[in-house]
Amino acid sequence: MSMKIGIIGSGNVGGTLGARWAQLGHEVTFGSRNPGSDAMKQLAARAGGKARAALPADAARDNEVLLLSTPWPAAQEVLRNLGDLNGKTLIDATNPLLPTLQGLELGNTTSAGEQVAAWATGAKVVKAFNTVGFNIMENPAFGSDKAVMFYCGDDAGAKQTVKQLTVELGFDAVDAGPLRQARVLEPFALLWISLAYGCGYGREIAFKLLRR
Amino acid sequence: MSMKIGIIGSGNVGGTLGARWAQLGHEVTFGSRNPGSDAMKQLAARAGGKARAALPADAARDNEVLLLSTPWPAAQEVLRNLGDLNGKTLIDATNPLLPTLQGLELGNTTSAGEQVAAWATGAKVVKAFNTVGFNIMENPAFGSDKAVMFYCGDDAGAKQTVKQLTVELGFDAVDAGPLRQARVLEPFALLWISLAYGCGYGREIAFKLLRR
Repeated sequence: MSMKIGIIGSGNVGGTLGARWAQLGHEVTFGSRNPGSDAMKQLAARAGGKARAALPADAARDNEVLLLSTPWPAAQEVLRNLGDLNGKTLIDATNPLLPTLQGLELGNTTSAGEQVAAWATGAKVVKAFNTVGFNIMENPAFGSDKAVMFYCGDDAGAKQTVKQLTVELGFDAVDAGPLRQARVLEPFALLWISLAYGCGYGREIAFKLLRR
Repeated sequence: MSMKIGIIGSGNVGGTLGARWAQLGHEVTFGSRNPGSDAMKQLAARAGGKARAALPADAARDNEVLLLSTPWPAAQEVLRNLGDLNGKTLIDATNPLLPTLQGLELGNTTSAGEQVAAWATGAKVVKAFNTVGFNIMENPAFGSDKAVMFYCGDDAGAKQTVKQLTVELGFDAVDAGPLRQARVLEPFALLWISLAYGCGYGREIAFKLLRR
């Protein structure tokens, strides 16, 4: 089932996910303040010609599935300028990282995911694609093992959409419950970041969910 | 290298870890308010006769490696009554869970691990054995995959001790950095708990750290 996907924040995460989804046959619009820039042209080419660039508000208006992949400090202002988000599926891939990358600006009793839901009135927010680096989103395979990708949210239909988009990328997609679970998925992102950088394990790491 | 280990809180986690370490040849003392109880006798038997039970303060005094595995609400009072902990390696396996198990009493800008270090004056605190259920500590093998166990702390020697005790149990032991990383390892425990209970995946789950 092909979807129309708008990427709000076409950096490393948004660029990687959008390009892969376009390659998989989805209709992708990369939102950018400079849709005519060389970077956006390169991204459209990387996406295999099945993508276009547009202003963020246009990307939001014309698509029912949106990926929020801006830096956290930009998220509120960007959302405010997107127009009516009522009924749209909004995948929140942000993490409320401190500039040092060594902590979260908020957490434990709230989360970026819940904050985004408060800002994006009427949108069906699903937290996903926040727990590993873009290199893992490019390729979630570790030999025969699949990296896990958790998602959480309060709307069953929106979660089903996100599950499909996650499985298509090659992840083991695991439903982690309601949106408030962003309170654990955002620190989980910080675990990945700290292992990759602070602890010296590098970016080519991920988690597998073992079951028996 | 055999160690002398005191278990402070001999419930599911402490009982499981202590019994396994005793079976592996370590000298284990199970701390209990009722060292003569039937439960403690059963635990000593399960440990293969290489363990004894004692009052917590005795278990603390007579051993250089201590496991703190009480419920979180009891931790401060228990530590206060252990006597001098100076120079001891204190493995903190607690999680500051709310009674509902659906959140943490504290986090993000502090952690149980850091709080324990503030209470256990002079002890070398290492956070470990808090991120999966005791059934995974009993057996960390999933076919040919090993569950990961993260540990963090500020004393290199104490961390080396914990690493050995973790590897011996069959875990993939991974150094997650300084003690403040308990701020991510405690929410990581909540992720396991929520998947096991709230999301219905059950207790026979764990994580593998994938590398490539």
